[in-house]
Amino acid sequence: MKDKAAIKKMIEELKTLKTDDMYLNDFFLTWNESDDEIAAVFQVAEILRAMRENNISAKVFDSGLGISIFRDNSTRTRFSFASACNMLGLTVQDLDEGKSQIAHGETVRETANMVSFMADVIGIRDDMYIGKGHTYMKSVADAVQSGYDDGVLEQRPTLVNLQCDIDHPTQAMADMLHVINHFGGVENLKGKKVAMTWAYSPSYGKPLSVPQGIIGLFTRFGMDVVLAHPEGYNVMAEVEEVAKANAAKGGGSYTRVESMAEAFKDADIVYPKSWAPFAVMEERTEIVEHGDDKALHALEQACLANNAKFKEWTCTEELMSLTRDGKGLYMHCLPADITGVSCKEGEVEASVFDRYLVPLYKQASYKPYIIAAMIFLAKFKNPSAKLDQLLKKEAERIR
Amino acid sequence: MKDKAAIKKMIEELKTLKTDDMYLNDFFLTWNESDDEIAAVFQVAEILRAMRENNISAKVFDSGLGISIFRDNSTRTRFSFASACNMLGLTVQDLDEGKSQIAHGETVRETANMVSFMADVIGIRDDMYIGKGHTYMKSVADAVQSGYDDGVLEQRPTLVNLQCDIDHPTQAMADMLHVINHFGGVENLKGKKVAMTWAYSPSYGKPLSVPQGIIGLFTRFGMDVVLAHPEGYNVMAEVEEVAKANAAKGGGSYTRVESMAEAFKDADIVYPKSWAPFAVMEERTEIVEHGDDKALHALEQACLANNAKFKEWTCTEELMSLTRDGKGLYMHCLPADITGVSCKEGEVEASVFDRYLVPLYKQASYKPYIIAAMIFLAKFKNPSAKLDQLLKKEAERIR
Amino acid sequence: MKDKAAIKKMIEELKTLKTDDMYLNDFFLTWNESDDEIAAVFQVAEILRAMRENNISAKVFDSGLGISIFRDNSTRTRFSFASACNMLGLTVQDLDEGKSQIAHGETVRETANMVSFMADVIGIRDDMYIGKGHTYMKSVADAVQSGYDDGVLEQRPTLVNLQCDIDHPTQAMADMLHVINHFGGVENLKGKKVAMTWAYSPSYGKPLSVPQGIIGLFTRFGMDVVLAHPEGYNVMAEVEEVAKANAAKGGGSYTRVESMAEAFKDADIVYPKSWAPFAVMEERTEIVEHGDDKALHALEQACLANNAKFKEWTCTEELMSLTRDGKGLYMHCLPADITGVSCKEGEVEASVFDRYLVPLYKQASYKPYIIAAMIFLAKFKNPSAKLDQLLKKEAERIR
Repeated sequence: MKDKAAIKKMIEELKTLKTDDMYLNDFFLTWNESDDEIAAVFQVAEILRAMRENNISAKVFDSGLGISIFRDNSTRTRFSFASACNMLGLTVQDLDEGKSQIAHGETVRETANMVSFMADVIGIRDDMYIGKGHTYMKSVADAVQSGYDDGVLEQRPTLVNLQCDIDHPTQAMADMLHVINHFGGVENLKGKKVAMTWAYSPSYGKPLSVPQGIIGLFTRFGMDVVLAHPEGYNVMAEVEEVAKANAAKGGGSYTRVESMAEAFKDADIVYPKSWAPFAVMEERTEIVEHGDDKALHALEQACLANNAKFKEWTCTEELMSLTRDGKGLYMHCLPADITGVSCKEGEVEASVFDRYLVPLYKQASYKPYIIAAMIFLAKFKNPSAKLDQLLKKEAERIR
Repeated sequence: MKDKAAIKKMIEELKTLKTDDMYLNDFFLTWNESDDEIAAVFQVAEILRAMRENNISAKVFDSGLGISIFRDNSTRTRFSFASACNMLGLTVQDLDEGKSQIAHGETVRETANMVSFMADVIGIRDDMYIGKGHTYMKSVADAVQSGYDDGVLEQRPTLVNLQCDIDHPTQAMADMLHVINHFGGVENLKGKKVAMTWAYSPSYGKPLSVPQGIIGLFTRFGMDVVLAHPEGYNVMAEVEEVAKANAAKGGGSYTRVESMAEAFKDADIVYPKSWAPFAVMEERTEIVEHGDDKALHALEQACLANNAKFKEWTCTEELMSLTRDGKGLYMHCLPADITGVSCKEGEVEASVFDRYLVPLYKQASYKPYIIAAMIFLAKFKNPSAKLDQLLKKEAERIR
Repeated sequence: MKDKAAIKKMIEELKTLKTDDMYLNDFFLTWNESDDEIAAVFQVAEILRAMRENNISAKVFDSGLGISIFRDNSTRTRFSFASACNMLGLTVQDLDEGKSQIAHGETVRETANMVSFMADVIGIRDDMYIGKGHTYMKSVADAVQSGYDDGVLEQRPTLVNLQCDIDHPTQAMADMLHVINHFGGVENLKGKKVAMTWAYSPSYGKPLSVPQGIIGLFTRFGMDVVLAHPEGYNVMAEVEEVAKANAAKGGGSYTRVESMAEAFKDADIVYPKSWAPFAVMEERTEIVEHGDDKALHALEQACLANNAKFKEWTCTEELMSLTRDGKGLYMHCLPADITGVSCKEGEVEASVFDRYLVPLYKQASYKPYIIAAMIFLAKFKNPSAKLDQLLKKEAERIR
């Protein structure tokens, strides 16, 4: 556990990072943030965690609301957002929108304003429809910006992307912080090999935002990121372009390979996970827009049948033995489809999953702090001064 | 934005108003409140808003619960109540009662006590059944009063009517505060013409509490209030009596006219909105009491068919041009049924609605402060002293 | 109402009780707690209540989460838990698990950790399946313990049993605190007769945890506890063993009798309440495990038919007249099935229920304080010092 002196030192390091543009801004896609901004999120997350471990309150809001808009059930993300808000002093108020609706123009603008009179933060998860989630978040952001400019809202709430169709920044950054800690610092990541691979699941339509988030972020750290999936399970081309550009800039690489075995070979990190093909998800969005239930069912059946051809894409002990010294770090965003446990045939063998249980839980544990850090950096112009103040005040969380 | 000196001045003005009877009392119907009490709600709402704009905390509760009892889905009212409670330091706890149930005697008494052991406020929305909502609220008020008298409850929670079958005080007062600000002060309202009119909506059974709330409150300010609706769409006779008496006392007038055009003629304010005929709502209540689903469906169909005869009752640009200098203030409690946007034919033309978007959102923005003011005035014997104290303390909301 | 001097005295009394083992521990079954620990819960509950009556804040958490896991709808328990958390400064976050699922191994471990990153308390109600609820709670406790030991969780949340298949400690202890206050102190309970009896209800499958909780706890106070039920409506044998052992140790008795009349004879306290036979509940658990809906329906019908044979098991005025001087204290955990009010034929005659309305509500009013006391004792190593500090600080709840 880090002590107060260590926290003080971390705050000093934070001062070297330029975060001005984050102030009063939103967090949508990691690749829209500068290296300093990404580093600042990690740093603030670690500081908030250390403060909590030292029973030092990080309650920077005396009152205020964090609005959650989830278009999908999500225990984990819901609890992470609630935890982050609670830590900072905000109360969560859920806006329950129907799962099956795709909200449009005017309605979005009106609802966004109606729920934001006292809102400091809005967290949105909208990952179900390709081409919609990110667009929806931008509409909400535009709506509250107009509301603020027009004098309707006293403050402009900050938006945090809790998962969209393109990126899953809170997941990818929690994952990355886990990797940083696992390998003993960001300076040790250069040259590490990361295998982001598709894996079979008996379910259909899992979002692409996790693999996209990983290749979009992990390529920034000089690592060799490899993506592997069966034919047709492509991710969005524009995100692959981001990955390539990041790799070029950061001194690493981004490659697509044809098999799990090739991807796992000498990998330091493996992230085998199911997702739906981009083309199918695009078709699905169109079908949902037209409300064609029959076509939706047909698409689902076709997709499941196609999935079933790739049951051998599963993370076995044999595959794990191909990783660096047979000790590659297994990662997953959870919940995983575990063969013989949560399903007959799934993404991972039970013995592999069990062996990595503790690291997997630790990986998940960073998310509340990542979300809190994003909020913190959007709300305080001088975040290190504010953290210094909290540290000096040393108000006890449990009094 | 008002500065601290302006807030100080507003608190001084508040001191001239007699609010003793509001202390530890409930807020049910605006016409049960004195002119001073109504003025005090507006004044406290404005002070709380100004404090928030100055980042001054209004957290007067260190802990405590605000219970919400909603018999209908309501994003807007739910968020307004949650915002008001949060601003004052209360946590909202929702009591989910079934939509279709009409609670009776013993059950009400028991539930009211069971949820109130730590409750400081109870906000109730129960507008679905004519003759029931207000009665239900009175039962809850009686129940917690007995609970307090009998030593079951340590404090008697204050009730706030978030919409009943008779009045919608938080809406009508938020609307009125918008009008006051729009026209630059309550002293400028004398002689202004207000047109509260029915408008066509493809839906059925919208509550009467909005038009009733408006004619019951707006007639107090020396304005000429006109009600217009198709034959048979009468509101409650007792509320019209209130409107007449208020108008007589306040130097304005209350009139019923036969058409939107007549109502809109030279109007300073227009409020075109759908509602169900009182007689139909009465019949509906009886049917629901007997659990007769078939009769309910038949009534609904008949009502919709009758509604369809009055599609020309819609707020067009042409009608708007009849208002004072063609610039009358368009109001709506939202969400509106907008022709060609949210429905094929509705309450208002899209171009009218769009033109008034910002004022409509501002109108809505007053509600959280109105609710907070009602709670504040019920909880502090000397509200101006308490506000003075908050202003002097100047605790930052965002620290 | 107790004043500050009285509160001070109560804190002094608390100092004589040994509560070290409660620190960072869970509260599952009253019979796993020592006499000192049980007494400490009552004492802290009374102190917290007196503080609240004196408007003294008991907010010992500046932030933090109380997780609620309810496998059944429960307005009362939900509000009690929310009240207790709010009073201490915790925010409740609900985990909605499906009603019909019986969670197993891995899933429990994962979910328990995923929701606990910021959790200080977890309150669980899982009473629907005999042999499952308590086991489930132990799994959650083990999961968060491992999480803490493995460095996944920064603190180990405390578990509070809000009702399981074996015991209902927050109910039984609230009931007992009511009895203590009703009879003017724990020292007056020796030799009092308590009749815990079955009573007819038109519903099926009410949990056994209330009668089990009562006989398991009330036998500790030197009282003569009598259990009566129709043939076949046995409670768990192991809990009867607990009751016998407690009675032997505490100088009272535990007896089973054949009729309500025999149980009510000269009783100081009567607690007539419906429950399902243990054997039926065991069969039901097995059926649910196998997902056999048809068998479940058949079991339900058989059980209801059997219930109907015992409609004369109802708390009448005639039976009440058999109690000590005809003035025995009638108790119920609420809601009761009241003949002619909430059902045609039920657990109690309306006139009996009505006569005891105020004591029944008072009985219920202790629950939030009991829960808060359990949390308090688990979170502070030196609870009396912490209470002293709160009393000295005298922070106002309503400021």
